[in-house]
Amino acid sequence: MSDDTTRYDDAVRVTGVTITPAAFPDPPLLNSVGVHQPWALRAVVEVHTAGGLVGLGETYGDAAHLSLLSDVAATLTGLDAYDIAGLARRVTTVLGTAEAPDRHGLTGHSSPSKTAASVIAAFETALLDLQGQAAGRPVYALLGGKYRDHVPFAAYLFYKWAAHPGAEPDGWGEALDPDGVVAQARGMIDRYGFRSIKLKGGVFEPAEEIGAVRALRHAFPGHPLRLDPNCAWTVDTSVRVARETDGLLEYLEDPTPGIGGMARVAERAAMPLATNMCVVQFADLPEAFERGAVQIVLADHHYWGGLHASIQLAKICETWGVGVSMHSNSHLGISLAAMTHLAAATPVLQHAVDTHLPWQEGNDVVQQPLRIIDGAVQVPGEPGLGVRLDPDALARMHENYLTCGIRERDDTTYMQRFHPEFELRRPRW
Amino acid sequence: MSDDTTRYDDAVRVTGVTITPAAFPDPPLLNSVGVHQPWALRAVVEVHTAGGLVGLGETYGDAAHLSLLSDVAATLTGLDAYDIAGLARRVTTVLGTAEAPDRHGLTGHSSPSKTAASVIAAFETALLDLQGQAAGRPVYALLGGKYRDHVPFAAYLFYKWAAHPGAEPDGWGEALDPDGVVAQARGMIDRYGFRSIKLKGGVFEPAEEIGAVRALRHAFPGHPLRLDPNCAWTVDTSVRVARETDGLLEYLEDPTPGIGGMARVAERAAMPLATNMCVVQFADLPEAFERGAVQIVLADHHYWGGLHASIQLAKICETWGVGVSMHSNSHLGISLAAMTHLAAATPVLQHAVDTHLPWQEGNDVVQQPLRIIDGAVQVPGEPGLGVRLDPDALARMHENYLTCGIRERDDTTYMQRFHPEFELRRPRW
Repeated sequence: MSDDTTRYDDAVRVTGVTITPAAFPDPPLLNSVGVHQPWALRAVVEVHTAGGLVGLGETYGDAAHLSLLSDVAATLTGLDAYDIAGLARRVTTVLGTAEAPDRHGLTGHSSPSKTAASVIAAFETALLDLQGQAAGRPVYALLGGKYRDHVPFAAYLFYKWAAHPGAEPDGWGEALDPDGVVAQARGMIDRYGFRSIKLKGGVFEPAEEIGAVRALRHAFPGHPLRLDPNCAWTVDTSVRVARETDGLLEYLEDPTPGIGGMARVAERAAMPLATNMCVVQFADLPEAFERGAVQIVLADHHYWGGLHASIQLAKICETWGVGVSMHSNSHLGISLAAMTHLAAATPVLQHAVDTHLPWQEGNDVVQQPLRIIDGAVQVPGEPGLGVRLDPDALARMHENYLTCGIRERDDTTYMQRFHPEFELRRPRW
Repeated sequence: MSDDTTRYDDAVRVTGVTITPAAFPDPPLLNSVGVHQPWALRAVVEVHTAGGLVGLGETYGDAAHLSLLSDVAATLTGLDAYDIAGLARRVTTVLGTAEAPDRHGLTGHSSPSKTAASVIAAFETALLDLQGQAAGRPVYALLGGKYRDHVPFAAYLFYKWAAHPGAEPDGWGEALDPDGVVAQARGMIDRYGFRSIKLKGGVFEPAEEIGAVRALRHAFPGHPLRLDPNCAWTVDTSVRVARETDGLLEYLEDPTPGIGGMARVAERAAMPLATNMCVVQFADLPEAFERGAVQIVLADHHYWGGLHASIQLAKICETWGVGVSMHSNSHLGISLAAMTHLAAATPVLQHAVDTHLPWQEGNDVVQQPLRIIDGAVQVPGEPGLGVRLDPDALARMHENYLTCGIRERDDTTYMQRFHPEFELRRPRW
């Protein structure tokens, strides 16, 4: 199969691609594998066209991923922005069976196909941004239309230190016990109006985290609650926690590793189980569904292959009666816009979407970031993604990248610098 | 959820919809429920926009379907052609739980959701044609891009009478035994270059049809063969036929009714089973896949909800390791174009696509129908579907419709007019 060589107008014919690694301050957020480093990395993708349009994408900024992005970017000149099949072919050709391992261990197993999907996604968002600009339509319109005017997001709480060691405290304060967690929730809900709450767990003994869930339930009786220990528990511990939190949780996310383990927990847990760790690519779906391992799949266009693929994932979940919501890593305003369009175009979306955005507040690469008001983002009606790059902000974040010294996310090594006894163990309890 | 009220340019804002029932001569093709009537019915959908563009769709022309189409058409004024979600909402609102039963009994069970899907599909094709014209891109580009330059189609053989009773013989001649079937195949392959062959069975005793398969295999040793008795057989008969045709068939299509029956055949048949009768909507997929009832799903955008939905169906099949090809009813050149774009944009398509087109040769509503050459249609590169209406031809076919007296497809009653002893029985053998 050759490229689509039909000669169209050149308005969205790719003339070049810029990949800019960016770093922005990240608070010391704790999870089962360690603690967030002081700088989070992302890559900003700009796809330029003969018509002078620029399409935007945002993806991981780790060195291995940047290298693959760069290899593919070099092959995109001449591509028509509508030719997503041509993009996929180029990625397959360039990557072969290359694999960028998930070093931070928080989005499940890696594979060559998942790596290819994450590279396709980075560019597909930019091509859809271009298609939308050319057609004068928002990206959601290219995905099948808008099923909601506002996309609900969830408050994403973390246990955290008051400050990175040796640095000034950040504005969020310490959260190392139920009171700290509730105070963090209150601050976040006051500012953003979130109506759902997620607590990142897997940090302390389960009893301590169950206490935090109870405190949140008491303080916010009307807010659906989720707990996500990132596979820190054995099957038996997961079942015990599920029993002790019965009636308290909207869902329990990734309590234990693997489809087999999740299936054993699901058999005995009253609440639905959600995942972004045991089901991370299409090939994982048949076994997970057949075994009843998960009741909610947390989609993430960044590694599921893009926005079109995520719509397909949502349709599969709808067909099998499995719920859908969205996973988040640390991200900026381009990804927020892409997630918002995707959620708008997803016919059945039962749960508020995760976002790290409040943790990056005040730092963005877009000029007027979409805002979370009353817990939701109003779906933008402008052509394309509806956000425009702030070149000065990107230049500053790229300078951060050059000087910060971080080239890949590694929460574990960073934790061990201060707590040499910290061991990566999964499950831990 | 409100309509998408963002004000876009008016180029593809719908100003009106024309639904034109059309009838065209159909030969006396035999199947398990009777014989094709002398006229086949279709409806041609024209969606007009403020910018003067016309988007085309083609669907069933039965009276019940026309009535639903007309009810929905009246609500489409003002719709933006990109707003497929808005189309779906209108269809749901207008139809409620209305159901247009599959009177001819050849595309499986009916349901309100399948009826809605068939109405959405009729208009979605036209809206995609408009989107493509506005964007200057072929419809396949709006579905994710082109995965093949040529779409292979299969020779679709029927047992047939030499002529409708009382009428002149048609050019295809009689085919009521292996020799007649082989002669028909030769004529069709000579003219179109088909490289796969499908025989519509369920007409004669299985031994007779097995004989036809053997004759075809002998005459065309390199052509993959399919046999489709439209659920005319019991499970035991199906298994017996499967044993006797072992090594002869690419796949066996709908030998017996229902997912349960197909699963029992699949357990004992060596070749894959295909269906367009026991899996006809998304809700049928989980049970069918879990029970291993079908190894190939024959998609049909006319009742699966449109082109977008069919791409989703194909992704589901790919994910579960189930094959995909396409089903056909009697159709004209708008549907051929839609099927060609859909097949072009389907990443994994393992089998040649079914089409009745040779049976309607010389009758079309488009000016320059896509042509089947060497058994395949070259994917058109023009904006939209790439076909244009022939208003004179449509007027003639509409006049046929008005005068032919047929208002719904009913192969059984037509057969009983000449063979009063004919009974509808499923399974028959």
